[in-house]
Amino acid sequence: MKNQDKAVKKSAAAKAKDSPTSRWISYRPDIKVLDCTIRDGGLMNNHQFDDKVVKAVYAACVEAGIDYMEIGYKGSRKNITPGEYGAWKYCTEDDIRRIVGDKPGKTKISVMADAERCDYHEDILPKDQSAIDMVRVATYISQIPTALDMVKDAHDKGYETCVNLMSVSTVPERELDEALDLLAGSEAQAIYLVDSFGALYSEQVHYLIRKYLHYARAAGKEVGIHAHNNLQLAFANTIEGIVMGANYLDATMAGLGRGAGNCPMELLIGFLHNPKYHLRPVLTCVQEAIEPQRKALGWGFDLPYMLCGFLNQHPRAAIKFNAAKEPGDIVKFFDTLEEA
Amino acid sequence: MKNQDKAVKKSAAAKAKDSPTSRWISYRPDIKVLDCTIRDGGLMNNHQFDDKVVKAVYAACVEAGIDYMEIGYKGSRKNITPGEYGAWKYCTEDDIRRIVGDKPGKTKISVMADAERCDYHEDILPKDQSAIDMVRVATYISQIPTALDMVKDAHDKGYETCVNLMSVSTVPERELDEALDLLAGSEAQAIYLVDSFGALYSEQVHYLIRKYLHYARAAGKEVGIHAHNNLQLAFANTIEGIVMGANYLDATMAGLGRGAGNCPMELLIGFLHNPKYHLRPVLTCVQEAIEPQRKALGWGFDLPYMLCGFLNQHPRAAIKFNAAKEPGDIVKFFDTLEEA
Repeated sequence: MKNQDKAVKKSAAAKAKDSPTSRWISYRPDIKVLDCTIRDGGLMNNHQFDDKVVKAVYAACVEAGIDYMEIGYKGSRKNITPGEYGAWKYCTEDDIRRIVGDKPGKTKISVMADAERCDYHEDILPKDQSAIDMVRVATYISQIPTALDMVKDAHDKGYETCVNLMSVSTVPERELDEALDLLAGSEAQAIYLVDSFGALYSEQVHYLIRKYLHYARAAGKEVGIHAHNNLQLAFANTIEGIVMGANYLDATMAGLGRGAGNCPMELLIGFLHNPKYHLRPVLTCVQEAIEPQRKALGWGFDLPYMLCGFLNQHPRAAIKFNAAKEPGDIVKFFDTLEEA
Repeated sequence: MKNQDKAVKKSAAAKAKDSPTSRWISYRPDIKVLDCTIRDGGLMNNHQFDDKVVKAVYAACVEAGIDYMEIGYKGSRKNITPGEYGAWKYCTEDDIRRIVGDKPGKTKISVMADAERCDYHEDILPKDQSAIDMVRVATYISQIPTALDMVKDAHDKGYETCVNLMSVSTVPERELDEALDLLAGSEAQAIYLVDSFGALYSEQVHYLIRKYLHYARAAGKEVGIHAHNNLQLAFANTIEGIVMGANYLDATMAGLGRGAGNCPMELLIGFLHNPKYHLRPVLTCVQEAIEPQRKALGWGFDLPYMLCGFLNQHPRAAIKFNAAKEPGDIVKFFDTLEEA
């Protein structure tokens, strides 16, 4: 629905005309949906998911027509404590093959590699030896030289690549412009707007996506959006991204993800009108594989996450507040955050 | 934040310039916030709230600087079954006075009167005999002549008046234009865009608020927005309303309201930058008076409400699904809705 069917310039023109009925029915075939349920949700359980859950998400992605499934991180395995993290922190080929078999559907497999937390030279094999299709490099503004090297390494090995510039809501504008200029010169096929703290409002998304597109389009790249739900705006901001021209969209089953979680896949797939996407398998996955874990994992909108979003802060204080044995006092928590 | 500080024309111009930093810091003093926690939330429990809860909401509204509290309906008391509905279905003067006493703060009291479900000639007293400040008339498109008579009756008795045109997402455009033309000729100070089924996306809100303003502004009236959260867009759509120029904003504590609920007051107050609004009393109210009722009342976003939103249907099927003793199958529910 709504602007998915038009290139950015055309949809802006249509918006100016204010003739919505002509553009709410079709779809924009360039859009790609990426499921990052296991990768982002794993931040709530040290990536210790049962294979049954990972298989259910993969099966749902295939049946629902989702373009990519990000199955986890390629985290460094140096100095690890055995058992502290589950398989999806490392994503070895054996682990991935156990889930995807011979990859029956069209869904591609993505892994995320954090700048400075990945032994990418050794741990990421040449593409022809791997079940992985895409490597997404996640970077803070200060790590961009490393990220650029990682993107090049993965690209040269034969992978699709994206780059996710994290915590953009705290990056000074001048540095952001410089970063986008550098990333536009990389091999990445898409540059992601990442609202790590769930702190952006739609007009900020509007402004930032336009800025990202300015750099990305000139370099023949796409722009993506990865939203968090601290202010119940993850889906709304993803729509704003679509309207502005973002073509790579992150979402997770039932919104499972760190803290307040992500853009819920069931909302995104229900919204998109491309007939290749199907809602029923997503509903099944959410009901049978994801919702049963809500109590144990504890993701989703709540007041502590909301307050971190308002204050543009990392959700770690809220995660700690929610993990306490006794329920805490939200007003005292608010005061503590404001003092910080 | 964000456009609250500018008249519509100016904010549109600023948007065109894409210079957001100049307009994200201040506020728009014309904005009025209306709490309808008890009125809309009462649709989940036949308005049988303990006085303690109603008093907590009122105290929070006063302390938080909320402009209006809608305390319930003025429902017809003809042929009622004693005990079926709580006091807030009828809002007698005695009931209201028990909560508000001598009205210590600036928060005004509103009641809603449904067209054809209210004995307004008898049940709404002259303003000088009442604790009520504002009467909001809720009407379906087919009831507008009655609604106009109700608005006139309340206005002539000395009340502020608003009119809420319900279920707009199902109203044909030609009828909507005619309705808005009629309502613009009424005594109501504001005309509300009401997304009864939580089915509108931001671009539809954008389009409709512009249409409402076209009729309302010419008649010296304001436009309001009342959103539901079926698609997790109640807050986002309220922001879109603000950006477009809506000055009357409905919200409820913790989003308590029928079905998926409303725009959460804690999000709205956290977003607004007018220093007259305060978040702490809202947080206290949500934590102490509202959240403890969530399990019993069962409002808030979930898959059944989402599906009704996608299909632009009344949430009654989802309410029934959720009320069943045994958990139902969401995929079967989806199929049933699509067949309907």
